[in-house]
Amino acid sequence: MNLFRNTLAFCLLLTVFYSAGQTRRVIHIPDIEGYSTLKCDFHMHTVFSDGNVWPTVRVTEAWQEGLDAIAITDHIEYRPHSAEVVSDHNKSFEIAEPVAKELGIILVRGTEITRSMPPGHLNALFISDANPIDKKDVFEAIAEAHKQGAFILWNHPGWKAQQPDTTLWWEEHSRLFANKMLQCIEVFNGDEYYPEALGWAMEKKLTPFANTDAHDPIFNAGKPRTMTLVFAKSKDNEGVKEALFSGRTLAFCNNVVAGDEKLLGQLFNASLSFDEKPLNLKMKGRATVFIMNSSDISYELVLAVKGKEFEAPETITLKAGEITPVTLRGVSKEIESLEKLSMKYKVTNMLSGNGKNFEAEFSFTNF
Amino acid sequence: MNLFRNTLAFCLLLTVFYSAGQTRRVIHIPDIEGYSTLKCDFHMHTVFSDGNVWPTVRVTEAWQEGLDAIAITDHIEYRPHSAEVVSDHNKSFEIAEPVAKELGIILVRGTEITRSMPPGHLNALFISDANPIDKKDVFEAIAEAHKQGAFILWNHPGWKAQQPDTTLWWEEHSRLFANKMLQCIEVFNGDEYYPEALGWAMEKKLTPFANTDAHDPIFNAGKPRTMTLVFAKSKDNEGVKEALFSGRTLAFCNNVVAGDEKLLGQLFNASLSFDEKPLNLKMKGRATVFIMNSSDISYELVLAVKGKEFEAPETITLKAGEITPVTLRGVSKEIESLEKLSMKYKVTNMLSGNGKNFEAEFSFTNF
Amino acid sequence: MNLFRNTLAFCLLLTVFYSAGQTRRVIHIPDIEGYSTLKCDFHMHTVFSDGNVWPTVRVTEAWQEGLDAIAITDHIEYRPHSAEVVSDHNKSFEIAEPVAKELGIILVRGTEITRSMPPGHLNALFISDANPIDKKDVFEAIAEAHKQGAFILWNHPGWKAQQPDTTLWWEEHSRLFANKMLQCIEVFNGDEYYPEALGWAMEKKLTPFANTDAHDPIFNAGKPRTMTLVFAKSKDNEGVKEALFSGRTLAFCNNVVAGDEKLLGQLFNASLSFDEKPLNLKMKGRATVFIMNSSDISYELVLAVKGKEFEAPETITLKAGEITPVTLRGVSKEIESLEKLSMKYKVTNMLSGNGKNFEAEFSFTNF
Amino acid sequence: MNLFRNTLAFCLLLTVFYSAGQTRRVIHIPDIEGYSTLKCDFHMHTVFSDGNVWPTVRVTEAWQEGLDAIAITDHIEYRPHSAEVVSDHNKSFEIAEPVAKELGIILVRGTEITRSMPPGHLNALFISDANPIDKKDVFEAIAEAHKQGAFILWNHPGWKAQQPDTTLWWEEHSRLFANKMLQCIEVFNGDEYYPEALGWAMEKKLTPFANTDAHDPIFNAGKPRTMTLVFAKSKDNEGVKEALFSGRTLAFCNNVVAGDEKLLGQLFNASLSFDEKPLNLKMKGRATVFIMNSSDISYELVLAVKGKEFEAPETITLKAGEITPVTLRGVSKEIESLEKLSMKYKVTNMLSGNGKNFEAEFSFTNF
Repeated sequence: MNLFRNTLAFCLLLTVFYSAGQTRRVIHIPDIEGYSTLKCDFHMHTVFSDGNVWPTVRVTEAWQEGLDAIAITDHIEYRPHSAEVVSDHNKSFEIAEPVAKELGIILVRGTEITRSMPPGHLNALFISDANPIDKKDVFEAIAEAHKQGAFILWNHPGWKAQQPDTTLWWEEHSRLFANKMLQCIEVFNGDEYYPEALGWAMEKKLTPFANTDAHDPIFNAGKPRTMTLVFAKSKDNEGVKEALFSGRTLAFCNNVVAGDEKLLGQLFNASLSFDEKPLNLKMKGRATVFIMNSSDISYELVLAVKGKEFEAPETITLKAGEITPVTLRGVSKEIESLEKLSMKYKVTNMLSGNGKNFEAEFSFTNF
Repeated sequence: MNLFRNTLAFCLLLTVFYSAGQTRRVIHIPDIEGYSTLKCDFHMHTVFSDGNVWPTVRVTEAWQEGLDAIAITDHIEYRPHSAEVVSDHNKSFEIAEPVAKELGIILVRGTEITRSMPPGHLNALFISDANPIDKKDVFEAIAEAHKQGAFILWNHPGWKAQQPDTTLWWEEHSRLFANKMLQCIEVFNGDEYYPEALGWAMEKKLTPFANTDAHDPIFNAGKPRTMTLVFAKSKDNEGVKEALFSGRTLAFCNNVVAGDEKLLGQLFNASLSFDEKPLNLKMKGRATVFIMNSSDISYELVLAVKGKEFEAPETITLKAGEITPVTLRGVSKEIESLEKLSMKYKVTNMLSGNGKNFEAEFSFTNF
Repeated sequence: MNLFRNTLAFCLLLTVFYSAGQTRRVIHIPDIEGYSTLKCDFHMHTVFSDGNVWPTVRVTEAWQEGLDAIAITDHIEYRPHSAEVVSDHNKSFEIAEPVAKELGIILVRGTEITRSMPPGHLNALFISDANPIDKKDVFEAIAEAHKQGAFILWNHPGWKAQQPDTTLWWEEHSRLFANKMLQCIEVFNGDEYYPEALGWAMEKKLTPFANTDAHDPIFNAGKPRTMTLVFAKSKDNEGVKEALFSGRTLAFCNNVVAGDEKLLGQLFNASLSFDEKPLNLKMKGRATVFIMNSSDISYELVLAVKGKEFEAPETITLKAGEITPVTLRGVSKEIESLEKLSMKYKVTNMLSGNGKNFEAEFSFTNF
Repeated sequence: MNLFRNTLAFCLLLTVFYSAGQTRRVIHIPDIEGYSTLKCDFHMHTVFSDGNVWPTVRVTEAWQEGLDAIAITDHIEYRPHSAEVVSDHNKSFEIAEPVAKELGIILVRGTEITRSMPPGHLNALFISDANPIDKKDVFEAIAEAHKQGAFILWNHPGWKAQQPDTTLWWEEHSRLFANKMLQCIEVFNGDEYYPEALGWAMEKKLTPFANTDAHDPIFNAGKPRTMTLVFAKSKDNEGVKEALFSGRTLAFCNNVVAGDEKLLGQLFNASLSFDEKPLNLKMKGRATVFIMNSSDISYELVLAVKGKEFEAPETITLKAGEITPVTLRGVSKEIESLEKLSMKYKVTNMLSGNGKNFEAEFSFTNF
């Protein structure tokens, strides 16, 4: 009987994953100068808190979806399956870790400190042991995470269940921030967007995040899931940690990218390419630039600063993975003496602050 | 603190499922005369055996995918997560049941008796208590299920891990069959097809099944998952049970339907419709019948018995959900005296036995 | 050689269309009480004016896309291919007609009177001969069409090339309207929407239209093309004509439906179905209605008039072809004495006038 | 009125193409060493023979579909629209050329010599004037094309209308071939495959082609259309011509690539990449190589020559644009002394001859 059980276990193991012909999707978001762009999700749950999947699923689905790094962040205080699922707070990480190693996924050890507002829910990443964080007093719990060197983020600050009417920054958050116990804030959680959080992130230099907060299996036919883009010096745990503490992230959700203006510009430029040859645009003539967008992000542009002596389209969509023609028309004799043709577009799906958009300058050689 | 925990639990519950804007897909497979066609999957696992999802996921994903009935069939003997997941053998059913009720999914109580070959793995459905089935001797386990009134199926009879070279029917299966302890056999399991099993099902009047045997979350963008079509007198547990014991099923996997010839014909005919008006086909003339296939099954036809005095296409694909033109051409003077134009097509994706296909007769009014 | 040429012609003919395995897509938009809902496009071009396809393509692509009726409306005055394409104004209809008959597409004879604003471009449908409409004076041309019994529509009234800044109703349109020489207006043309036109249509009882105005081949992977929904007593030329002169249409474009409030309501109701059983909603309880949307139109709802004693979702998307759960929650003791639970939703993608939306009332049996 | 007509023409022109927000798709098929891989289609029709589109449509659809070069090859002898479409044989090229220039599509001047079998239909490419090719005698027509420096291909050699039962090479083809008046043969035409043609291409060093032979508009949602891959020294007319006369092409249709073994190998290798780090595979151990396929071609592999001392999968699908894990398992002690692990796979969708497949060798560093 013993032999049988071993054989069986081995056989079943083989069938589970690889035999299913699973493949890894590639998310096309370019690196920027000096950094690798890692696709990450730092907030998700398993049966070890109130999630509905075994920890290994979080790794295999991240691998299939083309992610580079994840953190499983089971609630410390809320474990509705505890009648059947028995363990300490480190178990979900320990179960997921060998699969992450095999598949080359960076697995960040994390947990979620889950309290009423204020301060609400906070994720602690890069901890060494989740068990001592299980403390009655929330600030003691946070202090313990901080002691372990944690990177701490405020989750879904505008969640209606905790901030039903307005999204407020509480005194408690100021205190945590002052004590370097708050480095980061979710600008997107699942499909939700919190404009105030983006504003605070830009003002206070909090690292902006976008996470799924997945409880159920993640199904994403087609569009990429909500994720944090991390611009890392190396593709490993240390590289992710350094980038997060340095604030080098953009939050990405439903084709919208939010965060620091400079990073937005670098990502935008790295996504696009076109032939540099002179346009030779003349009065009443037209010239077309074919812009290739190699990324999986479609950019939506609205003309912000018109060009001089020529007309350009009022709106442009640079579709993900395709080549879009942009036609300019000369409207005056002066165009024929211009060496450069420039205009600015507001990128409506790139947010550089609460109510602010990134503006992209295009400059084409004319003669 | 107690109050907070309650509030929190309620809030989280709300967010999990409905707030995600989940919808239920509709699988278009028509009813046949006298029966509702139920879409069913009677073989799947959860964290309570070697699966990787919480039992409720099996219900919600079935609901989303348009299924009517499922059975969760966790292994009795193989529970690799038992260090953390502690329970008796009825727990996964008990957890799933309230969600099934809310979503209107018929949840059949079942379990998997999991042994080396012979007799291999067997699912027992419609049991009343899985715990007493946990017996050392496999035939005692089966006898217990039988005593509870179980409908018993042989799972993946051609699984390479147990029958690596040939798919054999063992003496043990004959014994179970003779004692009315084996009513059914999987013709499809996951993406696998066992032709011998279809042969045995037709010879011995075993109910043919197709199940996913899912361990991981089910992702099905586009095509419907592997399922058993059950032709039931009523849309409830009793209706499913009566249909299974009466052998009224077809096995459906990757656009292939397998089972009894008569049921195949009823399903085929119920899927198709066309205008009945006379074709008036004459010598050297042509007439087109527009055939609407309202089902989600694309039918692949190859001409088997040619029509008299007219030509019809050698091959036809009746695409799921679309209208296909079929053009006939008169080739002799005699065509003009024929009242009916008939021909037969082999339906290559309808299997009526090991190596046998359903043949469909078309008959159109000419004059 | 003669024989060869004949044989060749025959062979080529066979290959062109049917052998390509082309099928007809089904657009799921339900009939309303007393009328068949026909999917129609009454504005498109061929090489016989400034279009880029042979007239038969307009028929075969309409057939493939699931349309019931079309009009080819080549410009009288604008024929840039005339150096190579030589014919009178009836030719494109005559070429398309036999293919339309074979495929069962209703082909309306039409033309486009193409002038500067005012009165701009006008389509004349159900004419008998396009040639006499080729007159120097636009009003003589329109009068000739009118004499032939034409149904006349004002095309793309807000087209930027003719009305760059504002969309105006000119004195000339008033004159035509007064003389019964203007029955209809395009509310949608291609992807463009003219809110003013919808306002005029509702005020003046002009039949609202949505047409593609296609010049190039029509590619529509996935979403249905821009079309006019015609509610006809019979599926033929006469049925279409009677419906148009009676104003029984809705304009449909990019999942937005525009027109008469009553027709919008009939279409909305015919699209939806749900189980009528009592909800038995009690205080603090919840009840879910599963709403099936059988149409290809996804309806976007925003709560307009709240229910009494219960809460309903602020927003609902009833996805095309799927089942959406709508959960109600009882908030007071009084709910338990209510026989009916009612609330109203604004349907944001159903326009009943310039700046107005259709409002749908739901009423569910409680006890 | 004159002014109006001009203004109108200008306005209409603007609306036709760019305003439709059309974009160019990117086909991911990698360059091979020393050559650019151009995606080409050298056989298609317009209204100037028996096609159903204006010549400019062939250019704009090729641009949208990501092609680099096309030839419009209207029939000399078969012009069923000639009652309305009046022109010489050069017109379709002349109309298409300015649009091709604007969009950067290489437009090869060609025509189709269209006769009964033998010799059947032949395309002549890179001609200078199609008119003199309109000769009664087919061999005189071919000689004229040859005199102009034409590259000549035999179209659809297995077309049922001309070779209903067997696909034969006729004496006439031998004569043309001997006189250097036949350089090329279609291995694929539309969706059809001619195995004999591939055999002849490999034996006789005929350049293998795959063309659409499109008559109607080309709709290709998703999969790339049938095309000839041309390995060119430069991305221009001269580069294409040199490559064709040198035989550097592969025929590509429905995910199957056919042609010279060496080119197949270069394309296969250029499509794939994986981490080169040592596998360190030991007895009873396993190691996984993650193979990235950057091309739009999914490769189907079947194990042909097993590895020594290790097991590899019997079948592998390297899905287009995704990363596929390939797991090896050590089966003996000797594996631990092997520096390289090698095995061969038959690539079932790469044809190197009639009934022959390309075989790919994989070699991984072990220690």
